[in-house]
Amino acid sequence: MLGQMMDRQLLISSIIDHAARYHGDTEIVSVNTDGSRHRTNYTNIRNRALKLASAFAGRGLKKSDRVATIAWNNYRHLELYYGISGAGLVCHTLNPRLFPEQFNYIVSHADDKIIFFDQTFLPLVEGIRPHLPNVKSWILMEARNDELSAKHDWLEFYEDVIAEGSDDHVWPDDIGETDASSLCYTSGTTGNPKGVLYSHRSTLIHAMMSATPDVMNFSARDCLLPVVPMFHVNAWGTPYAAPLAGAKMVMPGPGLDGASLASLFNDEKVTISAGVPTIWAGLIQHLESSGETLPHMKRTVIGGSACPPSMIEKFRDKYDVEVLHAWGMTELSPLGSVNNLKNKHFELPEKEQENIRLSQGRPPFGIELAVFDDDFNRLPEDGETQGDLYCRGPWVLDEYYLAEKGTTLRDGWFATGDVATLDGDGFMTIRDRSKDIIKSGGEWISTVELENIAAGHPKVSGAAVIAAHHDKWDERPVLIAVKADETATEAELLDYYSGKVAKWQIPDKVIFVDDLPLGATGKILKKELRQEYADCLKSV
Amino acid sequence: MLGQMMDRQLLISSIIDHAARYHGDTEIVSVNTDGSRHRTNYTNIRNRALKLASAFAGRGLKKSDRVATIAWNNYRHLELYYGISGAGLVCHTLNPRLFPEQFNYIVSHADDKIIFFDQTFLPLVEGIRPHLPNVKSWILMEARNDELSAKHDWLEFYEDVIAEGSDDHVWPDDIGETDASSLCYTSGTTGNPKGVLYSHRSTLIHAMMSATPDVMNFSARDCLLPVVPMFHVNAWGTPYAAPLAGAKMVMPGPGLDGASLASLFNDEKVTISAGVPTIWAGLIQHLESSGETLPHMKRTVIGGSACPPSMIEKFRDKYDVEVLHAWGMTELSPLGSVNNLKNKHFELPEKEQENIRLSQGRPPFGIELAVFDDDFNRLPEDGETQGDLYCRGPWVLDEYYLAEKGTTLRDGWFATGDVATLDGDGFMTIRDRSKDIIKSGGEWISTVELENIAAGHPKVSGAAVIAAHHDKWDERPVLIAVKADETATEAELLDYYSGKVAKWQIPDKVIFVDDLPLGATGKILKKELRQEYADCLKSV
Repeated sequence: MLGQMMDRQLLISSIIDHAARYHGDTEIVSVNTDGSRHRTNYTNIRNRALKLASAFAGRGLKKSDRVATIAWNNYRHLELYYGISGAGLVCHTLNPRLFPEQFNYIVSHADDKIIFFDQTFLPLVEGIRPHLPNVKSWILMEARNDELSAKHDWLEFYEDVIAEGSDDHVWPDDIGETDASSLCYTSGTTGNPKGVLYSHRSTLIHAMMSATPDVMNFSARDCLLPVVPMFHVNAWGTPYAAPLAGAKMVMPGPGLDGASLASLFNDEKVTISAGVPTIWAGLIQHLESSGETLPHMKRTVIGGSACPPSMIEKFRDKYDVEVLHAWGMTELSPLGSVNNLKNKHFELPEKEQENIRLSQGRPPFGIELAVFDDDFNRLPEDGETQGDLYCRGPWVLDEYYLAEKGTTLRDGWFATGDVATLDGDGFMTIRDRSKDIIKSGGEWISTVELENIAAGHPKVSGAAVIAAHHDKWDERPVLIAVKADETATEAELLDYYSGKVAKWQIPDKVIFVDDLPLGATGKILKKELRQEYADCLKSV
Repeated sequence: MLGQMMDRQLLISSIIDHAARYHGDTEIVSVNTDGSRHRTNYTNIRNRALKLASAFAGRGLKKSDRVATIAWNNYRHLELYYGISGAGLVCHTLNPRLFPEQFNYIVSHADDKIIFFDQTFLPLVEGIRPHLPNVKSWILMEARNDELSAKHDWLEFYEDVIAEGSDDHVWPDDIGETDASSLCYTSGTTGNPKGVLYSHRSTLIHAMMSATPDVMNFSARDCLLPVVPMFHVNAWGTPYAAPLAGAKMVMPGPGLDGASLASLFNDEKVTISAGVPTIWAGLIQHLESSGETLPHMKRTVIGGSACPPSMIEKFRDKYDVEVLHAWGMTELSPLGSVNNLKNKHFELPEKEQENIRLSQGRPPFGIELAVFDDDFNRLPEDGETQGDLYCRGPWVLDEYYLAEKGTTLRDGWFATGDVATLDGDGFMTIRDRSKDIIKSGGEWISTVELENIAAGHPKVSGAAVIAAHHDKWDERPVLIAVKADETATEAELLDYYSGKVAKWQIPDKVIFVDDLPLGATGKILKKELRQEYADCLKSV
């Protein structure tokens, strides 16, 4: 027997409808590519999203057609999120930091019909356009510019598309919550990039749980500045969760340096932010040199890669900002776990609380985590036993886009590619990427742990640990470090590990480099480091 | 094209599975009917719920069969919530304050197969049992008691049912999220009580949104004591939302007097509670006479009927407890709106903030509210225009249980029976029940407003305003009041209205009574008052 409650589908358009009706005058502040600030609100965002939807219908796009964006975090990008998905099309966010060949592969694979892009990316678009004949429209996210138009006869303008839309358009009524809503490709360190095709339902359930206190904790009293780009797993879902809660939003545009962020945080009274550790390192550096503080900021979600403990401490002790350490993946929409202590933990000594805060946290309702061995036997969740981390839940992918049926999951579980431990409270600690972990004499050594220690050394500004080949032990750790201070020496860094890890886990060698190679999403490309340095111990 | 995310159904069993796995040792403290305290945790609750499910299967119950409860808020009732719904059966909570005839009607209408009940209700059960031959089992929620068993050969015992269950039972896999999960009947002031049949889906979406900061704000750092009974709209959904967030729960059993509550709040470090105004009046009275405080309590959700402003102020100023004024209905699972200010409101003068706090609040994502006139024309949402309040959303009922198809809604909207205003921010103010509102010379007078003013007078402990017939004006307000102080006079109460409402809205008369008649859910039965006093002005 079915329950007798209303059948209301969980649709992305219902979020912006809610925000426009109940938080209509709540501001969206947006930094333009020229650095100026634009102010709008949820009512306007919704009305213009509807105009976009109307224009798409007028251009003959069919349900589930892909419409792509190459754009910063700004209000037009937010309008596109809602206008595209609301129209029943698939919003495909492209990462502008990809190599041109990856771009061409992804746009062709996704079969994008239209590409919207910010002015910054005009040169990039000029380069890729000749290789992508199936893209019907290339639309610059600005008002019409006659000079540019004269120069590029193929160029269209965002505000012209808005003007095409009718004022009394309504959302189409043939969209179900399991229909595709958006598409992100993973950066794919091996093989071709792979697409994750989100549904309205997965996005909405993720957004509702994101807003809860132990996840992102969004209310109508908050002001959110998402530093994490909207082309990086939908800015971790914040463009859905924040309007759902009625929070003010500040979209930082291209300027993510410490000075620009500090002035936005303070001018706009931002209460919460979200981003990767590299950005926060830049902000802290700026604050320390300028003497500025963050009087309105209450908390920030840090994810993307492991956050050095020293950063958590500095944020808390010096700026009174709580750091929520989070872990996720494109395949998880992306939230997998957030580090929030429980009631009982507050009775522990400060030092033990600290230790718990260093883990990747525990899953919110919706996500199940488990560790398995190589033969897919489930391992104990005792905080000690390391295994391959798997997960499942309503916002976890089922199958990569256009992948061969049944090739993505294992017994209904998604393999994250991480090696982790889980404890009795569900707190998960990533020990390594499965492919990065070091197997030394049959024992595992976590490169993440060694990198975190190095990152805490005052003379180090960047650190990566890789497995180098070793005759006796198979593999041994080598630290690749960037100096923050020219006086840094190998001996002093190695000495710094004493007492922090077991002796046999201390790296065999330190190699200083000027820069670490970074991928399109800001992650260190360890594969390149391994190619270059994997034999550095053999040559000794 | 469908999204490619996992198809994980939103099931009630998944909440207790999550709580048991990730918050397994989080305590559930429960007051037994004899006043002693029992301590258990989410792992045990889940394991015993699974044993119940196994026992139900063993007894041959079929999917969607109704299993009823007549019980206080205690751990066994929580086990039944999850055991019954988790097993694919329908958990039907019965209100013990109903009249026996209503009981018989509801149990027969629902076709309940089993009734679980607390010891308190044994006399009640003895009375109704002979009229309900279709109920197969009557199960006392205690361990076996040979004396009682000898006295009542039809009596079964809860712990024996648990013992019937197997230890390795798993939740059945044939349950979909739109299947029925639970059933509540509305008290029905006119006609027979009507059933609202919730689904797993409606319950889960309601629970996720309940946990968000602007609704109930549940985290794993909270300790919840639901004063609102589990037989009253599922304790406002808190037995689902609290485990979903991993909050500790304190179940108060039958003792809801001020002294019992104060000792539970303080011993167990309760941070949040929820209940109707009458209970809180008792608590405040106790605190004032005993001098106790509430050092751990942070906030309480007050709903069920309008909360007098004086209570909100006392909680805040004297006990540092934030009152969240909420509005809901059985048909809404029950949450319709919660009063939480927005960012922009904190810039208003204190007095204006106060005024906003007096409304029933704004709807969370999921709920849409609208006001209509008699001809079902949508009215302006300007904070001024009164109309019939309608609502819709994924946790709003579609059709009463076994009602004739298509008779419940109007154009997809549910009529709440309230007269209300809505403002541009979605803040809703109940002006009256549609049937209670006073029409005086063509103008509407809100009885709620007049009652709130009277309740704020120090010499009044209870107040109801009804429409009395009037030759000239059709209807005029009459205040029915209970004295808190014997010296209270009619003149002084009428005088108290001066300057607070327009002169023509002041009641024509005050009638003092010893008690106000209360219905099964604690609401004042205005119908009875009208029957008795509607002609009191004519006789003058």
